[in-house]
Amino acid sequence: MDKRNLTLLCDFYELTMANGYFLCGKRDTVAYFDVFFRDVPDGGGFAIAAGLGEIIEYIRDLRFDDEDIEYLRAQNVFDENFLEYLKDFRFTGDIYAVPEGTPIFPREPILTVKAPVMQAQFIETYILTAFNHQSLIATKANRIVRAADGRPVSEFGARRAQGASAALHGARAAYIGGVNSTSCVLSAKDYGIPASGTMAHSWVQMFDDEYTAFKTYCELYPDNATLLVDTYNVLHSGVPNAIKAFRECGITKCGVRIDSGDIAYLTKKVRKMLDEAGFPQCKIVISNSLDEKIIVDILRQGAQIDAFGVGERLITAKSHPVFGGVYKLAAVEDESGNIIPKIKISENHEKITNPHFKKLYRLFRKSTGRAIADYITLHDETVDDTQPIELFDPVYTWKRQTVTDYEAVELLKPIFINGELVYETPELSETRDYCKEQVDKLWDEVRRFENPHRYYVDLSQKLWDLKNELLSNGGKLK
Amino acid sequence: MDKRNLTLLCDFYELTMANGYFLCGKRDTVAYFDVFFRDVPDGGGFAIAAGLGEIIEYIRDLRFDDEDIEYLRAQNVFDENFLEYLKDFRFTGDIYAVPEGTPIFPREPILTVKAPVMQAQFIETYILTAFNHQSLIATKANRIVRAADGRPVSEFGARRAQGASAALHGARAAYIGGVNSTSCVLSAKDYGIPASGTMAHSWVQMFDDEYTAFKTYCELYPDNATLLVDTYNVLHSGVPNAIKAFRECGITKCGVRIDSGDIAYLTKKVRKMLDEAGFPQCKIVISNSLDEKIIVDILRQGAQIDAFGVGERLITAKSHPVFGGVYKLAAVEDESGNIIPKIKISENHEKITNPHFKKLYRLFRKSTGRAIADYITLHDETVDDTQPIELFDPVYTWKRQTVTDYEAVELLKPIFINGELVYETPELSETRDYCKEQVDKLWDEVRRFENPHRYYVDLSQKLWDLKNELLSNGGKLK
Repeated sequence: MDKRNLTLLCDFYELTMANGYFLCGKRDTVAYFDVFFRDVPDGGGFAIAAGLGEIIEYIRDLRFDDEDIEYLRAQNVFDENFLEYLKDFRFTGDIYAVPEGTPIFPREPILTVKAPVMQAQFIETYILTAFNHQSLIATKANRIVRAADGRPVSEFGARRAQGASAALHGARAAYIGGVNSTSCVLSAKDYGIPASGTMAHSWVQMFDDEYTAFKTYCELYPDNATLLVDTYNVLHSGVPNAIKAFRECGITKCGVRIDSGDIAYLTKKVRKMLDEAGFPQCKIVISNSLDEKIIVDILRQGAQIDAFGVGERLITAKSHPVFGGVYKLAAVEDESGNIIPKIKISENHEKITNPHFKKLYRLFRKSTGRAIADYITLHDETVDDTQPIELFDPVYTWKRQTVTDYEAVELLKPIFINGELVYETPELSETRDYCKEQVDKLWDEVRRFENPHRYYVDLSQKLWDLKNELLSNGGKLK
Repeated sequence: MDKRNLTLLCDFYELTMANGYFLCGKRDTVAYFDVFFRDVPDGGGFAIAAGLGEIIEYIRDLRFDDEDIEYLRAQNVFDENFLEYLKDFRFTGDIYAVPEGTPIFPREPILTVKAPVMQAQFIETYILTAFNHQSLIATKANRIVRAADGRPVSEFGARRAQGASAALHGARAAYIGGVNSTSCVLSAKDYGIPASGTMAHSWVQMFDDEYTAFKTYCELYPDNATLLVDTYNVLHSGVPNAIKAFRECGITKCGVRIDSGDIAYLTKKVRKMLDEAGFPQCKIVISNSLDEKIIVDILRQGAQIDAFGVGERLITAKSHPVFGGVYKLAAVEDESGNIIPKIKISENHEKITNPHFKKLYRLFRKSTGRAIADYITLHDETVDDTQPIELFDPVYTWKRQTVTDYEAVELLKPIFINGELVYETPELSETRDYCKEQVDKLWDEVRRFENPHRYYVDLSQKLWDLKNELLSNGGKLK
């Protein structure tokens, strides 16, 4: 079935501004906007970019249908010529973005739009909604997966997700971040993610007793008999009944899931019971309000766990449920096509933007393959990685180092050029592999959950000089 | 454009269980499930029910299309006869629910499903997703609106929402909870919510100077000139330029919006400047990471605010982003149609469910109109409010009171009967009015933000007796 037209999933002010630009002679003015963020959720060292897949769909399908126009007309604030113009509204500009799954850092451009300002402004809301949501979940999932330390993690959160697309696209983002499967069937189907899940407590309650419930399930699913053993009592009822059912049905590929109680204590007891009963291959699956902190802690206590199901704390990023990506004007073109840089000045140093149309490089040490720093340049600069490069801290500029033996990789890829989609979105499993590979290239110190080392995002000398010129001249070039 | 088919927005285990019930002879067994929750977000005294509108659409549109069946077949775990059966799968049961906008309390049934177990189990995920999400946001919005103490609140959060439906349905839920308008155009259009918004910082930056940006806007929108005054400096630039533009354009219906800085300090200064300039009618609108706590605090400090725009902390319920609604088996029917009550027993008293098919009454004092308590009965009991009623605490059963002078209102309304939709969903503005009216019927002590008085949710003597019989007999009737 067709997906819904989401063109109007925008803030009302995008339309009042667009109508304004239309009427005041700025409809053809080309503007450059950057998406960036300021803080990594949960105090982490990096985030994971996600959401580009849905942004591409939105831009490609962008059109106002008759019903949309009728609704806008009824608001009595839009010019009739503007409404007429909206009938043929399409995105005709350029978009550059880092691929999904890329580790990203504060204050660097993740996505850049170059387009007539009416278009560039209009697509702000959806770009931010998709990018903020999916980057939030991919980042959280990546933390949880790293905490699980090689054990599979399944995303289980649909029922606690903040609405249908939070479940659907949240599972997608979690997969990019590294989970192995999802319980959300629609997401599994749409994105080719393995689906997982076996039974709820109600299955057990629907039968006269727990053993009959287990035995029936084992007979039906001899190849995937993961039994939920905490409906009554894990140690006195659930696990003994599971063992009895496995034996009775000759099950070898089996598991037990525990969804309540003290996980560290219970799993050690359960492991012993299963081993002694001759089921050392039986997996122990855990699912009880887990996140990266609890997982690290119970594993540290020797919990015997083979796999995790993670629900509400992943699908809502409960400990930090907002990803603060913003969309800021970086430049406009004058009538002759010259790019005039724009800067947002603030008393707060952290809130000052990086002006102009830019490029983003990641520098990798050739000898180790590890990422050294990110490096932002003006759009017409090129990093020649056969030559040494001098990096300096953009605040404490006396902190300088000259880097040799490095490879410079440009991160912002062309996605749309002149409104044409020029980017081939990889299969989601490739994106997931790419994410893991890129996270592995970060130093352990940057990957630490608590108080990680700050990764350097430096400006080229030219960009730094331009920024300072604008700052000392009230936002204008001298 | 058609909305997308969301039938597969379910957990995979709903399907493995359904296939299991199909194969093991339970396909026609009628089951009763209750939706309820255990804790009010943010430590509040009550929550606001929302999400029924989307649940109704989901149930009504429920069907597996060929692509869905093909996907399931490819999983190699479902019986071919079951897949065949899914082709004609429709909901044929009954659903009872409290109307949207109703204040709700922990452990009472908010929604009850009676249907063949395969259907009743299958719809669990979507019911919980819609109910949990929208109740979360309606509850948060209601707190924020009450904190604003009569000043209008606009929902501004689309860009930080957890995906498209979190923006769309989140704005809907926020409106039920009492906000006055939304910035999300699609939600405004779909649900008849007033749309609001005027300009972003980028509008100001697109012009050579702030005054020109303001004047242009005032000329274009003389009836709705709310100017964003913090792009450069609120007191030294923004407000003086706004006043100049209002004067130049002869604007009378005007406003200024402040999105950063110390709100209590700035608004007092700005109010004075506007009044002295002859614009006492100019509204001051505030939008800077607000929630109910900050709003209460800055109003207490004498901040001069006429309206609020509230974004990320509302649309994600940031301080408590999960609503823990659950879906639990309450009864099954035997072959003769007798209802066999089911209970989930737990070491944790709070996690024990209320068994059987039930009714929910709210008792209002006739003399004051205020709600006294909620009262849960078995399905075949009727409260006669011409007679006194004895209430008792379900834990401390010696706490008893006899209530007279009350009206008993049944809260669970028939929504679907035998699969037919029998409920007429009110206009959303009526639901919003109903919500306000019902919240006003709660005592102040229950409405307090911090440490509110616990509202009583009591069981009838018959239900209490049944629960105790099951508890003392391992979940079974004697």
